[in-house]
Amino acid sequence: MLRGADWLSRKMNELSLEHVEVISTSGHPVVYGEWLKVPGKPTVLVYGHYDVQPVDPVAEWVSPPFAPTIRGDYIFARGASDMKGNGVAVLSALEAWMRNGGLPINVRVLFEGEEEIGSHNLEKFVESHKEKLKCDVFLSADALITGPNLPSLAYSARGILFLEVSVYGPKTDLHSGEFGGAIENPAKVLCELIAAMHDSSGRVTLPRFYEQVRTLSGEERAELARTPLSEEEFRQIAGVSQLDGEDGFSTLERLGVRPTLEVNGLSSGFTGEGEKNIVPARAMAKISMRLVPHQDPKAIEEGFREYIRKKAPPTVRWDIKKFSSVPAVLMSRNSLGMHAASKALEAAFGVKPIFRLGGGTLPVVGVVQEKLGVDAVMMGFSLPEDNLHAPNERYYLPNFSRAVESYIRFFEAISHER
Amino acid sequence: MLRGADWLSRKMNELSLEHVEVISTSGHPVVYGEWLKVPGKPTVLVYGHYDVQPVDPVAEWVSPPFAPTIRGDYIFARGASDMKGNGVAVLSALEAWMRNGGLPINVRVLFEGEEEIGSHNLEKFVESHKEKLKCDVFLSADALITGPNLPSLAYSARGILFLEVSVYGPKTDLHSGEFGGAIENPAKVLCELIAAMHDSSGRVTLPRFYEQVRTLSGEERAELARTPLSEEEFRQIAGVSQLDGEDGFSTLERLGVRPTLEVNGLSSGFTGEGEKNIVPARAMAKISMRLVPHQDPKAIEEGFREYIRKKAPPTVRWDIKKFSSVPAVLMSRNSLGMHAASKALEAAFGVKPIFRLGGGTLPVVGVVQEKLGVDAVMMGFSLPEDNLHAPNERYYLPNFSRAVESYIRFFEAISHER
Repeated sequence: MLRGADWLSRKMNELSLEHVEVISTSGHPVVYGEWLKVPGKPTVLVYGHYDVQPVDPVAEWVSPPFAPTIRGDYIFARGASDMKGNGVAVLSALEAWMRNGGLPINVRVLFEGEEEIGSHNLEKFVESHKEKLKCDVFLSADALITGPNLPSLAYSARGILFLEVSVYGPKTDLHSGEFGGAIENPAKVLCELIAAMHDSSGRVTLPRFYEQVRTLSGEERAELARTPLSEEEFRQIAGVSQLDGEDGFSTLERLGVRPTLEVNGLSSGFTGEGEKNIVPARAMAKISMRLVPHQDPKAIEEGFREYIRKKAPPTVRWDIKKFSSVPAVLMSRNSLGMHAASKALEAAFGVKPIFRLGGGTLPVVGVVQEKLGVDAVMMGFSLPEDNLHAPNERYYLPNFSRAVESYIRFFEAISHER
Repeated sequence: MLRGADWLSRKMNELSLEHVEVISTSGHPVVYGEWLKVPGKPTVLVYGHYDVQPVDPVAEWVSPPFAPTIRGDYIFARGASDMKGNGVAVLSALEAWMRNGGLPINVRVLFEGEEEIGSHNLEKFVESHKEKLKCDVFLSADALITGPNLPSLAYSARGILFLEVSVYGPKTDLHSGEFGGAIENPAKVLCELIAAMHDSSGRVTLPRFYEQVRTLSGEERAELARTPLSEEEFRQIAGVSQLDGEDGFSTLERLGVRPTLEVNGLSSGFTGEGEKNIVPARAMAKISMRLVPHQDPKAIEEGFREYIRKKAPPTVRWDIKKFSSVPAVLMSRNSLGMHAASKALEAAFGVKPIFRLGGGTLPVVGVVQEKLGVDAVMMGFSLPEDNLHAPNERYYLPNFSRAVESYIRFFEAISHER
């Protein structure tokens, strides 16, 4: 992490950004630089993150996750798409302007190191650096487009509530022949708890889970339906035999408009090769919920706890750990930044970008909206099929120059907007 | 494993057993020795195993699993109770006789190295060494008593069917924000499959699971009810807040008479510290069933497969691996060996042993019954609270001399039986 932060600060100095700093937080440091030389023009706060997801299961990587390898049209590495490809593209766009006499606008550049673990220290950082981060436009380079030739702009980001539930049975693993059948098995209880979290129509059964969910306007629904990505194309990208989800909603609606609940991990007892005949002492599940406007993560967590409290049998103990709790964000489609981004993408791709509802979570967007009063523009070039968060993460190289061009044009378009 | 086999063969030579051999199999070797010097007297085949269970979760051991450590009345080590304590006791009993002029009967001694993984090569070994293993009495030293002062003799051993079920979703882990909610989650499916394997009365729901289950005679049920172990004592040994199991049966019935289904392990997705927001590519459960007379492991496996086939949704693929498939065994309570064991235990403990239904599985018992036509005597001194198959396995040292005495008296009692 420190080497990543150091690389960024040297790069920012190379670009002749000023006041470049590696600023420590309670967690991983923030890297900051600025160039504020065009009075009267807007200031863009460029955001990225230099942390990445864990690499496991590492055995499934074709080439080592930290030895970037080009195969065909892709560069493979952990972080290639989330988000070092986009990060290098936006820095290259800044470099292009600087080498040609300087930017047409003012910029502040901020990379954090905790996006993949919930940006826990960012809120406090923004709160205590409001003056330093003052801007007219917030550009996040951590974003996706819909397809290699389908530029899009997300005007929402889902929130997330990431919990870990542990169920405890006997004090220690017990012999399944001498105890099994006469005591509760915590792995069985955990499975029962998880199994009942969805009903047969694919709806989440947690109390009050859907109460605050925003319904889409007819215009938004029509815009979403215009997305030129068929269910069949999405199925192929996902690599599954058939799609599945909440009844009554299209795939794009399931991914953008609807909240979801996913099991991210399960662990209990003996999982090595072969057999071990035990009643395990405990079982653990990592469970995350993607939240949509206007769900309140605190209320959803309370509903989750209430569900477990009511449903867990008295034969076991349980606890819940919380790792992330981030609300969803809605952004204006009519901001200065959105107009500029739309123009830039159309020029680089030759196609008007579509507006979409983002499925992922970017905590900084809500923080900046709340603390700095600025809506984000999420313009990045990762693709859904890039294996984000998975083995063999990759970045589509033919789009790299389009990415750089888009960012160059974005800064130019901003300069004309005021 | 080879060092264990070597230690045994040297020990058998020390005891002046003859024809001591380490005999290779397709798996771990069998160690054999014999002393056949008392024509006209019965021959006892003494059985033990020198393999042990895996040690994980190794972090929970107070002292290292392979550094035997005495604390209080116990020696702690992996295998202390299952079954090196009993193994050393029975070898010590042989030693006592040999140092005092020789045994009053004939013995053959056999230790295998694959009991904990289902004794897969033992059936073939016994089949091809029928002459070498010919005996009147089969003594397994791998057995439990009911309590420190409650000697007991099991006249049944449950069978086992150990399976591993894997459920496959997308080809690779996928980003839960970009795909979650629009594709099936294999961890969720696995939980649904497991959750429905028991109904609300604690009965297993697999097709035809109970069809062949033997019902107990009134006399057996009365004998079982006489066991001086209260539900409260058992609850404390298990270390749980309350007992649980199939409705309509006592704890002792649940453990001996009734078949059970237990989840022994669960694994899916990300299980490290913190969070990783994915839809996992697959999920795995280790599931074992303890079988009772007269359930047929093949028929039970067929029922299990039918259950998964009917219940798994078409959105996932799945497969099932089999690790063990052993039928349950019933033994006569009126054999030569049972009489001798009963006398020996009463003399050593000062209490008449009770007959009990064994909860565990000992594949050799069925093999010997079928191939050699001899019922087993299961006389060992492990205790239910010894943490068998669990961290901090231990052996209760005050019973070690009683164990040696019981085996000494057993060989003597056998010599008087004919």
